[in-house]
Amino acid sequence: MGPSRPLDTRKYFVICANSMGSCFGSTGPASINPTTGEPYRLAFPVLSLEDIATAGKLLVEHLGVAELEAVVGPSMGGMTSLAFAAMFPEMSRRLLIISSAPRTLPFSIALRSMQREMIRRDPEWKSGNYSPGEGPITGMRLARKIGMVSYRSADEWEQRFGRERVPEERKTGDGFALDFEIESYLEAHANKFTGQFDANCYLYLSRASDLFDLAEHGGSLAEAYRLLGPQKITVVGVVSDLLFPAHQQRQLADGIEKADPAKEVTYIEMDSIHGHDSFLVDMDQLRPILQNFFKRA
Amino acid sequence: MGPSRPLDTRKYFVICANSMGSCFGSTGPASINPTTGEPYRLAFPVLSLEDIATAGKLLVEHLGVAELEAVVGPSMGGMTSLAFAAMFPEMSRRLLIISSAPRTLPFSIALRSMQREMIRRDPEWKSGNYSPGEGPITGMRLARKIGMVSYRSADEWEQRFGRERVPEERKTGDGFALDFEIESYLEAHANKFTGQFDANCYLYLSRASDLFDLAEHGGSLAEAYRLLGPQKITVVGVVSDLLFPAHQQRQLADGIEKADPAKEVTYIEMDSIHGHDSFLVDMDQLRPILQNFFKRA
Repeated sequence: MGPSRPLDTRKYFVICANSMGSCFGSTGPASINPTTGEPYRLAFPVLSLEDIATAGKLLVEHLGVAELEAVVGPSMGGMTSLAFAAMFPEMSRRLLIISSAPRTLPFSIALRSMQREMIRRDPEWKSGNYSPGEGPITGMRLARKIGMVSYRSADEWEQRFGRERVPEERKTGDGFALDFEIESYLEAHANKFTGQFDANCYLYLSRASDLFDLAEHGGSLAEAYRLLGPQKITVVGVVSDLLFPAHQQRQLADGIEKADPAKEVTYIEMDSIHGHDSFLVDMDQLRPILQNFFKRA
Repeated sequence: MGPSRPLDTRKYFVICANSMGSCFGSTGPASINPTTGEPYRLAFPVLSLEDIATAGKLLVEHLGVAELEAVVGPSMGGMTSLAFAAMFPEMSRRLLIISSAPRTLPFSIALRSMQREMIRRDPEWKSGNYSPGEGPITGMRLARKIGMVSYRSADEWEQRFGRERVPEERKTGDGFALDFEIESYLEAHANKFTGQFDANCYLYLSRASDLFDLAEHGGSLAEAYRLLGPQKITVVGVVSDLLFPAHQQRQLADGIEKADPAKEVTYIEMDSIHGHDSFLVDMDQLRPILQNFFKRA
């Protein structure tokens, strides 16, 4: 592998931690409470992104790393990275925030709130007391579909699906089930998601994202921006992002620069059609951004 | 009332018909099937916007009106008006289409499809066989909330609610229920909607909107535009509309003009923050548009 790798692992030691509260190895509502021998479920305390940042800090210390060259985070990970940079200012030199925010806008709260409601309204949620391996599959499927609407963009779907119809042989159920390929696409994503993510973990992480407000560090966004330790900060936005819109990314970059002119702030806008998911999909645009960010390190 | 009235009822006879398929006086899935004495429910045939246009035409004829000065329709009513103008070209002189479309984009199909799924996944829907006065209240509430997200705009909610919290005394249910005023707003709209609209009627009208494609009149949009009888056509779009975006309105106006240069087409864009609902909310911007439209009649 040559120098064109965006992240040269011969040069950098990459730490990628699962978020606390999530069900892929970290402690969360699906973990077994040693006292009861049962999952914590809703007895798990309210989770904050600051908790996730703190867990990350403990991991870094446990690994014997004193200082991080960079903290990188997209979406909820970007909010967590901002919290980390404000709470532990000495621990990192540079910060890369992708399609994220210092706090969530009400439109995005509305979408996440509905996702949580779909899960909670599913009788199989059982007020959080479903058995391990079971749970609110219908609610999770609907939440995933809302997710796809908020993660992608209208333009992408117009180019990709238009009004293409599902062939008769692939139609199932009543007449309201499936007419268009866009519906079939959402269905496929919902199927793929099923059983992968624990519903209570989803609820905790979703609410943590809504509750997060960087301004709680210092009392205002300006003060929080001044608290950020990294002196080199890059913010990346995507023109088609519905969930963390580009104007919010520009505000974040401008806000940091204004609050603390000593910091070197770069704002980059990706002209991608893939909405909030662009950082997962449009690697041809993201790769050079990463490359430049690390080249300057 | 003076001449400043946008629609002078001393001069014009205004006919405002409930859409066929809807449950406010017209025949639809909630109507009693005289053969069985029960509501039609899902035995009601697939509804099209062309059916609604045809029902409108029969009403106009029944009233003894030979020609309409104008046909006016917003949203689904605009699509129906386009169908009417293509199917019965001799019947109207001018056409006003507000926040509508010759066919729905996949993003809007996705939202409507999810609304239908929320209703159908509610066990109380009972495959459409709920008793009159009962039905899938939870599904309808969720569908209404998705509706509000698609009818309004992120900017409006940012200005109106920001991150305002619900006071402790108004919080109900588990910790995932209600933190922010935007959630309380959606909740209030869902409550207001409950019991007002029959679920099966909602499913039929929602699917009719998705299935509608003006290009089926003549084989292409250009041909359909040439079929439109009214020679004076005004199209109104709203910059913040998510469901029927402004670029779709411009395309509609441009498409008609290009297909049939003899027609006098006007495109007006409302710089309103209220999204798709602007025609219901922002009367100070809509009123002069109506006034001008009818002044020229």
